[in-house]
Amino acid sequence: MRYAILGTGVVGRTVAARLDSLGHEVVIGTRDPVATLAREDYAAWRTAHPAVGLATFPDAAREGEVLVNATGGRVSIAALTEADAAHLDGKILIDIANPLDFSRGFPPSLDPVDTDSLGELIQRTFPQLRVVKTLNTMHCSIMVDPALVPGEHNVFLSGEDADAKKAVHGLLVSFGWPDHAVLDLGGIETARGTEMLLPIWLRLMGSLGRTDFNFHIQGA
Amino acid sequence: MRYAILGTGVVGRTVAARLDSLGHEVVIGTRDPVATLAREDYAAWRTAHPAVGLATFPDAAREGEVLVNATGGRVSIAALTEADAAHLDGKILIDIANPLDFSRGFPPSLDPVDTDSLGELIQRTFPQLRVVKTLNTMHCSIMVDPALVPGEHNVFLSGEDADAKKAVHGLLVSFGWPDHAVLDLGGIETARGTEMLLPIWLRLMGSLGRTDFNFHIQGA
Repeated sequence: MRYAILGTGVVGRTVAARLDSLGHEVVIGTRDPVATLAREDYAAWRTAHPAVGLATFPDAAREGEVLVNATGGRVSIAALTEADAAHLDGKILIDIANPLDFSRGFPPSLDPVDTDSLGELIQRTFPQLRVVKTLNTMHCSIMVDPALVPGEHNVFLSGEDADAKKAVHGLLVSFGWPDHAVLDLGGIETARGTEMLLPIWLRLMGSLGRTDFNFHIQGA
Repeated sequence: MRYAILGTGVVGRTVAARLDSLGHEVVIGTRDPVATLAREDYAAWRTAHPAVGLATFPDAAREGEVLVNATGGRVSIAALTEADAAHLDGKILIDIANPLDFSRGFPPSLDPVDTDSLGELIQRTFPQLRVVKTLNTMHCSIMVDPALVPGEHNVFLSGEDADAKKAVHGLLVSFGWPDHAVLDLGGIETARGTEMLLPIWLRLMGSLGRTDFNFHIQGA
């Protein structure tokens, strides 16, 4: 499968590296590839992952059969708009972003929140995409290697398209998630619930002083 | 210890019954005791729990050494205002309510949310109270009998007063919570995190079709 990861930060690179290691073709999309390559963090990572391509948002979106939104949640709509609607038609978008708003400092607030969500906003703005919200409730290292947290813990799915959720469920299993650890919450509206886990996640990070934990729904 | 439970609904009665069974003196506070006694649900419950008193908000707040806010989150400030500030001075208030707003139907939204919380609003409005937010993240049956959900799961604490949190921690242990299951998140600001667990809790209730589950922070 050919994956296009939108976003060049740690989250996008972590998912790109895992997909590459599983034998998939992977291209990372960015606004300005020349500027991205000039960044020391990206250049160092690229040397370690020479098979992962880098392209503009529209080129990456055209190449990818499945898209992953790993942009900052506050710029996701702009990035997808730049990707060009013609390259999105019918494709699965795995939305792993959160609409964190750092404009008032740390911890960030969420925007949208409560009566809307980034997952819904993307689905509403790009109805030709099959949006599946998942993996947004944990540190990116755990997304692609759940065994980093010993014991049972969960990953959630929200989305309107049953076939798209089934495909993403399969991808999660290939990342190491046990089948029963994947909890389907329902339609994309349920993304409100998972995005609103971020506030307690951030405060747990503060009180525990680390990020190697995850939510487990005991009794589910 | 003498406890005053503010609120006559299922949540308040469940906590009142548990405190009564543990040998505490318990009085339930309500706006209009005559009207409460005229309710069939309350009258039936009272017959089964004859030792639990019923009084007006101010009378209950005066009698209680520790207060429990089990009112609907949207009327908590009004109930505490009616309780009369003179009866609140220096007391611990265990806030187990959530600011659920059903005005737009189900699932409810939260108000306040994200940049404020009910816990903070109560602490700000009644600075003479020592507010400890806890137990608001699960069905009330589990609050007072955590063994209803087999395996490890957590209850959170938020509050400014270390002694008050220590006292509430002790009460939770008397309810059956293992010492290590009680996670102190920090100040009352962290109530934003636990109140914002409600949206996923409600959606899990929808997808699972039951309420006998709870959050566990795996790796904490």
